[in-house]
Amino acid sequence: MAVDLAPEPAVAELVTRTAQFVRDVVVPVEVANDGVVPSESVRRELQAAAKEAGVFAPHVSPEYGGHGLDMCARAAVFEEAGYSLLGPVALNIAAPDEGNMHMLEAIATEDQKARYLAPLAAGDVRSCFAMTEPAPGAGSDPDALTTRAERVPGGWRIDGRKWFITGADGAAFAICMARTAGEPGDRGGATMFLVDADNPGMKVGRHVPTLDESLFGGHLEVDFDGCVVPDEAVIGEVDQGYRYAQVRLGPARMTHCMRWLGIARRAQDIAVAHAAQRELFGARLADLGMAQQMIADNEIDVAASRGLILRACWELDQGRSAGLEVSMAKTFTAEAVWRVVDRSLQLCGSVGVSGDLLLGRFLREVRPFRIYDGPSETHRWSIARRVVGRHTAAARA
Amino acid sequence: MAVDLAPEPAVAELVTRTAQFVRDVVVPVEVANDGVVPSESVRRELQAAAKEAGVFAPHVSPEYGGHGLDMCARAAVFEEAGYSLLGPVALNIAAPDEGNMHMLEAIATEDQKARYLAPLAAGDVRSCFAMTEPAPGAGSDPDALTTRAERVPGGWRIDGRKWFITGADGAAFAICMARTAGEPGDRGGATMFLVDADNPGMKVGRHVPTLDESLFGGHLEVDFDGCVVPDEAVIGEVDQGYRYAQVRLGPARMTHCMRWLGIARRAQDIAVAHAAQRELFGARLADLGMAQQMIADNEIDVAASRGLILRACWELDQGRSAGLEVSMAKTFTAEAVWRVVDRSLQLCGSVGVSGDLLLGRFLREVRPFRIYDGPSETHRWSIARRVVGRHTAAARA
Amino acid sequence: MAVDLAPEPAVAELVTRTAQFVRDVVVPVEVANDGVVPSESVRRELQAAAKEAGVFAPHVSPEYGGHGLDMCARAAVFEEAGYSLLGPVALNIAAPDEGNMHMLEAIATEDQKARYLAPLAAGDVRSCFAMTEPAPGAGSDPDALTTRAERVPGGWRIDGRKWFITGADGAAFAICMARTAGEPGDRGGATMFLVDADNPGMKVGRHVPTLDESLFGGHLEVDFDGCVVPDEAVIGEVDQGYRYAQVRLGPARMTHCMRWLGIARRAQDIAVAHAAQRELFGARLADLGMAQQMIADNEIDVAASRGLILRACWELDQGRSAGLEVSMAKTFTAEAVWRVVDRSLQLCGSVGVSGDLLLGRFLREVRPFRIYDGPSETHRWSIARRVVGRHTAAARA
Amino acid sequence: MAVDLAPEPAVAELVTRTAQFVRDVVVPVEVANDGVVPSESVRRELQAAAKEAGVFAPHVSPEYGGHGLDMCARAAVFEEAGYSLLGPVALNIAAPDEGNMHMLEAIATEDQKARYLAPLAAGDVRSCFAMTEPAPGAGSDPDALTTRAERVPGGWRIDGRKWFITGADGAAFAICMARTAGEPGDRGGATMFLVDADNPGMKVGRHVPTLDESLFGGHLEVDFDGCVVPDEAVIGEVDQGYRYAQVRLGPARMTHCMRWLGIARRAQDIAVAHAAQRELFGARLADLGMAQQMIADNEIDVAASRGLILRACWELDQGRSAGLEVSMAKTFTAEAVWRVVDRSLQLCGSVGVSGDLLLGRFLREVRPFRIYDGPSETHRWSIARRVVGRHTAAARA
Repeated sequence: MAVDLAPEPAVAELVTRTAQFVRDVVVPVEVANDGVVPSESVRRELQAAAKEAGVFAPHVSPEYGGHGLDMCARAAVFEEAGYSLLGPVALNIAAPDEGNMHMLEAIATEDQKARYLAPLAAGDVRSCFAMTEPAPGAGSDPDALTTRAERVPGGWRIDGRKWFITGADGAAFAICMARTAGEPGDRGGATMFLVDADNPGMKVGRHVPTLDESLFGGHLEVDFDGCVVPDEAVIGEVDQGYRYAQVRLGPARMTHCMRWLGIARRAQDIAVAHAAQRELFGARLADLGMAQQMIADNEIDVAASRGLILRACWELDQGRSAGLEVSMAKTFTAEAVWRVVDRSLQLCGSVGVSGDLLLGRFLREVRPFRIYDGPSETHRWSIARRVVGRHTAAARA
Repeated sequence: MAVDLAPEPAVAELVTRTAQFVRDVVVPVEVANDGVVPSESVRRELQAAAKEAGVFAPHVSPEYGGHGLDMCARAAVFEEAGYSLLGPVALNIAAPDEGNMHMLEAIATEDQKARYLAPLAAGDVRSCFAMTEPAPGAGSDPDALTTRAERVPGGWRIDGRKWFITGADGAAFAICMARTAGEPGDRGGATMFLVDADNPGMKVGRHVPTLDESLFGGHLEVDFDGCVVPDEAVIGEVDQGYRYAQVRLGPARMTHCMRWLGIARRAQDIAVAHAAQRELFGARLADLGMAQQMIADNEIDVAASRGLILRACWELDQGRSAGLEVSMAKTFTAEAVWRVVDRSLQLCGSVGVSGDLLLGRFLREVRPFRIYDGPSETHRWSIARRVVGRHTAAARA
Repeated sequence: MAVDLAPEPAVAELVTRTAQFVRDVVVPVEVANDGVVPSESVRRELQAAAKEAGVFAPHVSPEYGGHGLDMCARAAVFEEAGYSLLGPVALNIAAPDEGNMHMLEAIATEDQKARYLAPLAAGDVRSCFAMTEPAPGAGSDPDALTTRAERVPGGWRIDGRKWFITGADGAAFAICMARTAGEPGDRGGATMFLVDADNPGMKVGRHVPTLDESLFGGHLEVDFDGCVVPDEAVIGEVDQGYRYAQVRLGPARMTHCMRWLGIARRAQDIAVAHAAQRELFGARLADLGMAQQMIADNEIDVAASRGLILRACWELDQGRSAGLEVSMAKTFTAEAVWRVVDRSLQLCGSVGVSGDLLLGRFLREVRPFRIYDGPSETHRWSIARRVVGRHTAAARA
Repeated sequence: MAVDLAPEPAVAELVTRTAQFVRDVVVPVEVANDGVVPSESVRRELQAAAKEAGVFAPHVSPEYGGHGLDMCARAAVFEEAGYSLLGPVALNIAAPDEGNMHMLEAIATEDQKARYLAPLAAGDVRSCFAMTEPAPGAGSDPDALTTRAERVPGGWRIDGRKWFITGADGAAFAICMARTAGEPGDRGGATMFLVDADNPGMKVGRHVPTLDESLFGGHLEVDFDGCVVPDEAVIGEVDQGYRYAQVRLGPARMTHCMRWLGIARRAQDIAVAHAAQRELFGARLADLGMAQQMIADNEIDVAASRGLILRACWELDQGRSAGLEVSMAKTFTAEAVWRVVDRSLQLCGSVGVSGDLLLGRFLREVRPFRIYDGPSETHRWSIARRVVGRHTAAARA
């Protein structure tokens, strides 16, 4: 009944097994491919191996082949999966599929689950989440949503442009956020739609070239141009899209943090291994004070991130929206992971800059996380508003 | 059996009660006295009020009038006590008495407990912990201990100089660390002795003037000059002083963190209250982006500290030494608290610098915590050594 | 004709002489008095010694007993004066007198100079500058000025409240900013008045207790209550006060920076001396990597500040307003000085916290400089506006 | 005779012309090629255009077609050249050629100049500087040099492995550092050799893949395997290589800083242009406080870097070795440029991460500069040693 920070035994065992699987099976593939899943066939091979090892899709319920982990348990398992850039794909817990599964399991109808969730959870297909729009549309400010869905007989017609739609290349379906009420800038009025990839009204355009390159299926421009979907394509209720987005976004931000925390630990391990064997100025690099400071700060950053993530996850597991805790964990972790990878690269010197270690790759991959899923500035703004609001409410009372 | 971050109900209730007591009873005394306990009589009045409120000495066992809280529970209660600089004195959980009680309850004989722990836990007397020595003696490097205790018939004779002995002015007794084996620089060989204040061989000297001023009883120079103590003055076993010091220091570092975290929250509350009412450049200060950034970073720093403290406490509660976790929590919290107070002062501008708010006082009080109980640099060195050692052990295996 | 960073020989010689004077004469007095001028008589003794040494009042023209240094030359000399907290008082270049002399020499009539500037430059009297008001008056936002001056026959009647008026206790006269046109919030419309200390309408109130304590004459509340002054009390032209304030503030911000840079160098010297002799963990502190990092960062911070100050001074010497350069130099230097003193204190450990070195005193003295003369946030806002404005203008062209 | 920060008129005019050339001619090529010189023919076209514009090779003496700029003048011109990643190649002032020209002009014989410097200065050929070796050879610690040159009749035979040899692919010759006396770890004993690319004993191996990609000619592994060169291949005197390396390295570090400072300004300009037109949360991004803070900090970082660079250049122009000033300028600028690019990218959000702006490219290019030419840690170590040494010398005197 008292405070307990240890995961239950079954979870602890899964954590260990996942760590082992990633080191033995996934890391070699990652190293051989500069941190990028090279092809659909490799994706399938990795997932087959994960199923074999009993570590596949741990977040979905047993009904869909998973372990039904709550958020606190995911925190421990996903961090181990994230120890390799390819771990999340192997376990089928990469963005955006993982978040889509989470939301569909929570909100979709049984029919929708059978048709979309089941094959997604099995790794048979991939998906994408079409929310972000080019400026001045929905981005840091979701209320700016400009894509519209209008009623047509038996369904809806969607029109608008999205971009930075992760995984869209090769996705079997998209979940599209479109405005069904109000004007851009208004709060509320969005609806989520399931759109099949073969819908002629949805056009997947160019890959947006980005600093990061490891998210399978890229970041794409997607146009909805007279895209007609039936009523059954609506997820949950009409006009409730922002509410569902919150169902998805809070946990999705945390699972991002968990995965990237794995990369931070990996970077630290690479740097420590380097520092432990590198001789410099007549000493071991690991025994030089400035190197020790970087190693210590890395360790602290990882531990502090883990604590913030666990707190936010526990709040979510209690059924709370945990907006403040999620924003704090996301902001801190995104910046901490960046610092850890940066210091690790610095510790390794020229080798760290080279492709002979994966640190340059990691640096590229983690940088956008300070922007994706809400830039640090937007989260800080949100945190401050909540804190000041809490004060104002207390002062009134 | 799963992860649980909520304190049990009785603890939660004590937390609430402590928070209320500090706000209602302690803060007014603190504000009226610029953050310093002005006299022994005020100390006694505050403690009487805490007993009345049922929040006194929560860390000692019921046998000694307390609530027998484990470390995780202390984390929650002490943070509330620390919300005022005078809260810890009021609850009898201020340094160094609190750490001395902790250690005596764990190690002392029943006779020693009756004679020293009981009146200390009741607040009837105060104590000090005489370990630190002027350079080149024991400080950041405890092995440098130079004070010696030599066998004499029926007891020991202690000779050496201590300084920065907190609370020594007015203490009824000291716990003195002295070398009983080996030479300065050697690991081990220290013993802890109970020394009564009226022992003619112990001379309490000048108050060392310091940036901080709120620790009751000051920081003093203490000379042991032919100070003879009986065999019963030995705490635990001869030559085991460093081991006991660890029993004391790990938890004591955490309780320091808890208390200072309370001050950080207080500083944030003062700053937010100011920002919520101050108009500037046609806007509310709380709505300006740079102010929001400071408020958000404060909130994150507090939350991250809390997570690291809880982790270290939980490890300690499991009976582990938790050296890594304690060093990480201590280093991060000491620096985070400093940042929070500094930002809060900045947010308040000139008023923040003035004595009209307590922020200048807080800044002075928290600065030394980055040095006391091991400077950040020593802890980082220790963290890095543990991390590299872990790597080396794993690489061998 | 090419770039030249060396001061001319006469200035270089004065720099050397000033440095010697401060070390030989001023520092001993400072150390004996914990960094605070203890009395008016000590102030006079120090100034007599500075006159004797030929280093007194270097900024005013020879006509008023000085060396007529331009801003670039002041940068070198004032930094040496600032090496001790008492150096500026000794040379009669402390705030606010130094800024007042600068402005009076630039703007005042010959009569005003004879009556106010001459005795001020000679150190016979002190002065204050009464601009800052309690919220919601003039502070970070000077346009918020609420103190009013209204026409009366033969002069003006001033009404309003000021605070944080440095040096007001014992000042022979004040320069008061009061609104002669417009409403609080309006740009412009202020006038500067000379007010004698014995004017019955000017009441010097309580000392505002502050974190810093070394500015002679304190920070005070000053009330203007039906304070009548003659027409000759107006400095320059009516309604042009903001323009004159800029004449004063830009250079005054730079001289603040110069003086505090001296303290930063002093802190570094104290820390390096400590690190060079302190043995720790079997090594010299100065040879441990984390200490070396702090020493190097101190040196870089000092050098970078010096470069920014020199640039702003050179722009001022060219007759430009240099608002951008002044804001950048002020913001960076205020924060750099703070970091340097903080690191120096950290390097010295417990001794650094104690009054046995002056670092705790320095920490208290330099903290407010991040707020006084415009908080860092206000300067950053101003810098960003200028940069964006420059872009917008260029884009239009 | 007084301090003067303005470049002389001819230099100022060249600065303006260079800035115009880079904006008009170079930037379009850079943008079209993602910041990388795509081919030798484009390199030649850009250089022809620079010659046409009269801005080519400004650092070499008129005898070799340049303007004979001193270091202070280079600071102003190179910064403008660096405004585009391709600017330095266009002006023939890119690393490593620029540093090689500088050294050859200072040290080489007339014959060597005719044969190597003249075509290099004309842009007819490229070169490389073969000093760095894989661990445990020469890197941060140049004394670790392992490549050896042994006397053979009429010349020398060089054996050893180099890596990270910038520009080696396509270079007409290398300047190779090899040990002619002592053992790895000994101070001194190196000699510099000119080695033609067609020497069969020099083998240019694989391109080391690196985070940065814009240095033309790549970073390569180069093997010297029984590489025989004649006596005339020795630059300067035998065993004096480290001394000459200092001739090259100090200025070369500064010219690196100048060029990267140009990129920092460019990044800031891109970000400010974005912030000035992007609307967000009902405001212009450029008017939001957190954005303003980033813009201001960028501007301060650029200005502070410029001041430190100018100081080091001026010292070099006075004929001093300026080791301390160079280390401070290099360390600060490398980190400041990194911060500026990072903040600029953050300001632009998702667009900043995308290839639609060049910020991701810039981030990749500037990261290694904190490692190349001496990691920040090595420079900080060197700075601290100089500062402590200065103290120790003064204390003795």
